[in-house]
Amino acid sequence: MEMSKPTLGFIGTGVMGKSMAGHWLKAGYEVWVYNRTREKLGHLLELGAREARSIAEVVQHAQVVATMLGFPTDVEDVYLGENGLIANGSPAQLFLDFTTSSPDLARKIAEKAREKGISALDAPVSGGDIGAREARLSIMCGGSEEVFNIARPLLNVLGQNIMHHGPDGAGQHAKMCNQITIAGMMMSVMEALAYAKSVGLDPEKMLASVGSGAATSWTLQNLMPRVLKGDLNPGFFVLHFIKDMDIALNEAEKRGLDLPALRLARQQYQRLADMGYPHLGTHALWLVYEDLLG
Amino acid sequence: MEMSKPTLGFIGTGVMGKSMAGHWLKAGYEVWVYNRTREKLGHLLELGAREARSIAEVVQHAQVVATMLGFPTDVEDVYLGENGLIANGSPAQLFLDFTTSSPDLARKIAEKAREKGISALDAPVSGGDIGAREARLSIMCGGSEEVFNIARPLLNVLGQNIMHHGPDGAGQHAKMCNQITIAGMMMSVMEALAYAKSVGLDPEKMLASVGSGAATSWTLQNLMPRVLKGDLNPGFFVLHFIKDMDIALNEAEKRGLDLPALRLARQQYQRLADMGYPHLGTHALWLVYEDLLG
Repeated sequence: MEMSKPTLGFIGTGVMGKSMAGHWLKAGYEVWVYNRTREKLGHLLELGAREARSIAEVVQHAQVVATMLGFPTDVEDVYLGENGLIANGSPAQLFLDFTTSSPDLARKIAEKAREKGISALDAPVSGGDIGAREARLSIMCGGSEEVFNIARPLLNVLGQNIMHHGPDGAGQHAKMCNQITIAGMMMSVMEALAYAKSVGLDPEKMLASVGSGAATSWTLQNLMPRVLKGDLNPGFFVLHFIKDMDIALNEAEKRGLDLPALRLARQQYQRLADMGYPHLGTHALWLVYEDLLG
Repeated sequence: MEMSKPTLGFIGTGVMGKSMAGHWLKAGYEVWVYNRTREKLGHLLELGAREARSIAEVVQHAQVVATMLGFPTDVEDVYLGENGLIANGSPAQLFLDFTTSSPDLARKIAEKAREKGISALDAPVSGGDIGAREARLSIMCGGSEEVFNIARPLLNVLGQNIMHHGPDGAGQHAKMCNQITIAGMMMSVMEALAYAKSVGLDPEKMLASVGSGAATSWTLQNLMPRVLKGDLNPGFFVLHFIKDMDIALNEAEKRGLDLPALRLARQQYQRLADMGYPHLGTHALWLVYEDLLG
């Protein structure tokens, strides 16, 4: 597999995907892009991306195809569907799924790909829209270590902390650890803000104090200021986070592992979705607590 | 009040207090120290601290007296007791309480002090044992802003982020925000580790990935490595954290504010205390989850 300047493909150019595909373009790669909603390609075409009209067209041109999709069902369609990547793929191609999706599905895709001589890695990312924009993503990979090493130069263009976590699906499991960590943290950051408001503290000062000591976190430093400005745009969508929590809860349950803080976060985010905000950013969890404040 | 080189006092030289008093000594202040358990003074006496045999003796020598105690009942005794600071204090003295304690008690102390012409600030800190040792504490102050400005040069010796949050008790409220933030975060970090172990990930690699993206936090970067090494020493005591969560839950309840993640954390830490570990560090919460892993 010649990786010096392979032709690339990118399927799924939403908030995260457009930044990631953009970095590959700026690094001098030819990138074929496809998105269900063509309007989301705009910016990338200006950067010189080649437009594909179907998944089949991407895989026909690109040696390495990356995907950044919404839900596991989308991943299943794009990879395993009749008109999908594996059906249209050829030996020696490499598929990289950046979507946060189910570890079981990652394993299934890797197996089906292998049967056709195709390599596949699960490679979900962390770092949010800012991390994608600034090429500072953390990328968690599962699959063959050899294939991981081949993909690494491409991943290095997108992030700063690129790790191989183990066999097929291990990248997804590592990402679940990431999401579990964020889930409880997001609640507690919002509860701190609710408390601050209820006792009459200046939230900006609270943020300055809490953000500089042992309670600090990326969430606090990056998302709390957005909440205080009233900017609840994604970032990362509520409904995608709910999807991730469901995958993690399901995987934990299969192993008889109870994760009560994750369960509570899942309920709180359900409230937020039920309030009509599935398409806001995860930090819109504030609305649930603001509601409690009355 | 002449603050160029006031004589200082320090009451309560435990994990945090001994580092803090040590910084004042190293900065060239004369510091009178008192601790219920005399053995805890050892290191400070080597640094040149003067030993007081009672609270009264501290307040007789020192213009500024700091306290770093365990529980609100200790704070009440030391400040308001018959042989306490206020009973033995004189006009123009300044008392600084670094203990995390009740906002109501802070207000009461400030009022009683004021009646005698004494200034008092509530000034709880964040940053843990490391922050205390490295003089990188965050200090959250409540009380008169003028008094805060007078105390500031002394606080600057101990920390890096010194904030005035409002009137008497506001420092305690800010610290409650800090503890609320940590409570949910601590659960979710431990749940991520439990998940990682249950699915067979390498916890060190998980920590490296999760710690470099949007899920990172001081807790993850500083306490998770201690858990992985099996070092569950405080740091910060479980039983003190339970005390803090009780103060916060009580203050929230008074205002009709429900904080479900904080409530859950309180329950989890009760389990840990009931398992026999009230004197371990807060990151010993891992033992509750390890227990669940079976």
